[in-house]
Amino acid sequence: MMTGHTPRDPDFEERVRTSFDGQNMMRTMGMSIASVGPGFIDIAFNHDDRFAQQHGFAHGGFVATSLDSACGFAALTLMVPNAAVLTVEYKINYLRPARADAYRASAHVVKSGRTLTYCEAALTAAGSDEALATMTGTLISLVDTGIEN
Amino acid sequence: MMTGHTPRDPDFEERVRTSFDGQNMMRTMGMSIASVGPGFIDIAFNHDDRFAQQHGFAHGGFVATSLDSACGFAALTLMVPNAAVLTVEYKINYLRPARADAYRASAHVVKSGRTLTYCEAALTAAGSDEALATMTGTLISLVDTGIEN
Amino acid sequence: MMTGHTPRDPDFEERVRTSFDGQNMMRTMGMSIASVGPGFIDIAFNHDDRFAQQHGFAHGGFVATSLDSACGFAALTLMVPNAAVLTVEYKINYLRPARADAYRASAHVVKSGRTLTYCEAALTAAGSDEALATMTGTLISLVDTGIEN
Amino acid sequence: MMTGHTPRDPDFEERVRTSFDGQNMMRTMGMSIASVGPGFIDIAFNHDDRFAQQHGFAHGGFVATSLDSACGFAALTLMVPNAAVLTVEYKINYLRPARADAYRASAHVVKSGRTLTYCEAALTAAGSDEALATMTGTLISLVDTGIEN
Repeated sequence: MMTGHTPRDPDFEERVRTSFDGQNMMRTMGMSIASVGPGFIDIAFNHDDRFAQQHGFAHGGFVATSLDSACGFAALTLMVPNAAVLTVEYKINYLRPARADAYRASAHVVKSGRTLTYCEAALTAAGSDEALATMTGTLISLVDTGIEN
Repeated sequence: MMTGHTPRDPDFEERVRTSFDGQNMMRTMGMSIASVGPGFIDIAFNHDDRFAQQHGFAHGGFVATSLDSACGFAALTLMVPNAAVLTVEYKINYLRPARADAYRASAHVVKSGRTLTYCEAALTAAGSDEALATMTGTLISLVDTGIEN
Repeated sequence: MMTGHTPRDPDFEERVRTSFDGQNMMRTMGMSIASVGPGFIDIAFNHDDRFAQQHGFAHGGFVATSLDSACGFAALTLMVPNAAVLTVEYKINYLRPARADAYRASAHVVKSGRTLTYCEAALTAAGSDEALATMTGTLISLVDTGIEN
Repeated sequence: MMTGHTPRDPDFEERVRTSFDGQNMMRTMGMSIASVGPGFIDIAFNHDDRFAQQHGFAHGGFVATSLDSACGFAALTLMVPNAAVLTVEYKINYLRPARADAYRASAHVVKSGRTLTYCEAALTAAGSDEALATMTGTLISLVDTGIEN
């Protein structure tokens, strides 16, 4: 995938993978990096009954977790080496019930500013292009300031 | 809490509690109903390292799950008996890192229409009034139509 | 532009143009239809000092008006003949200050349901592909029910 | 109205009024400051057929303009003297058709950070408490950096 973004940190991939591995939530939910590059990431995960809602579909929070993390790590690929990334906000639209065996949460950076990054993301069933849910979000880069914005 | 809403179903509380109990995600994340009434619900839950992000705080998806469910069940309190509730969309703003021992996710209905419901919700540390995150969301009532919108 | 959408009304274009022409706001702001088809619309308009903010750029409300209308009319292209369209919600992200002479507000339908439609839109300077602002929105089709949702 | 916010600039009111008066959009749409204080503002305006949609109600963009400006100026009341305020993002939910003679767009700051401010706002008919539309938004304070984020 070509995104036209130039990473500020040549070692971004290792940094992102280390951060991803340090996130308990990803491990707990069985989420892993399917691919990552400058300004984008794909997260793969499987259906899990523990994270289902009352009709047996993937809970909206399960979906949102994958997309939120995808946006955060996509943003992180373009940040300076010592930056921490926090989510400022996102909106999610649920377009179709999520009832596949396997999913992809794909995010890409649309605008990478010095402080703020704007990302778009979508959830699909693995092997499909049809969006089950979409997200747009704002992330903030925090450098040497602790983690408060 | 007085909300001025009149339930369309006198047995709404039993219906909401049954639906809540049928949602694996709430059980998996240790979330329970602290209080519920016409047009509102409070969900209580504790910090859980399994759902933490890379800095040790509650993952945004953990927070979003609690608020999304709170909006959904608050909306459901005012729906007709045979309605299913689905989330159409929400926006969440993360205002402060979530690093408390216990949380409350509180949602209330602002507008309950025949088809659409609009809710507002906030996450606080238990015993505090300070919002750590806020959500506004749209829910849809699906009656006798399957679960597609 | 191919969108893969099939209009429910073969006369959708005339219906959309009539509705657009009946909207004072579009006339007041000098907005016109540059192109329209099943599931998409492009709205063209020029900078206008009357709708500027304090730094001389296009006011966020000027931008939002163009994108909101674009989403609404894109959704309307796919609705049944007697439907009225209302905006349920949208989020807008402002990515760059808008200070061009001419703009395009382009919207396309991602999911067209019986009741709800989900659209995505972007503002660009005319002749540019760079998004100045993006919008995701939910529209509702109201048929024979008056205009309340 | 008590908000508990302490302005960083004792002359915030004059600064906000000067900025408001410098915004053509407010003058064009007949919007004025009804009240302003640390962390909040109320903007008053009247129905105007020029800014109506196809059913004769206030256009969503007219409503959004009032709420966006209200959020921006509420945020500005708490910023340092040399700050410029820009809108990062907002979501608006339209709850009821807007067809009153006069309106109030009221915004208050929920969280005022050094860089980012989070505001909530609502549109009501003058003299009513019923929300016709609600907004949540993120604003950024730009100091000595030009107006890019």
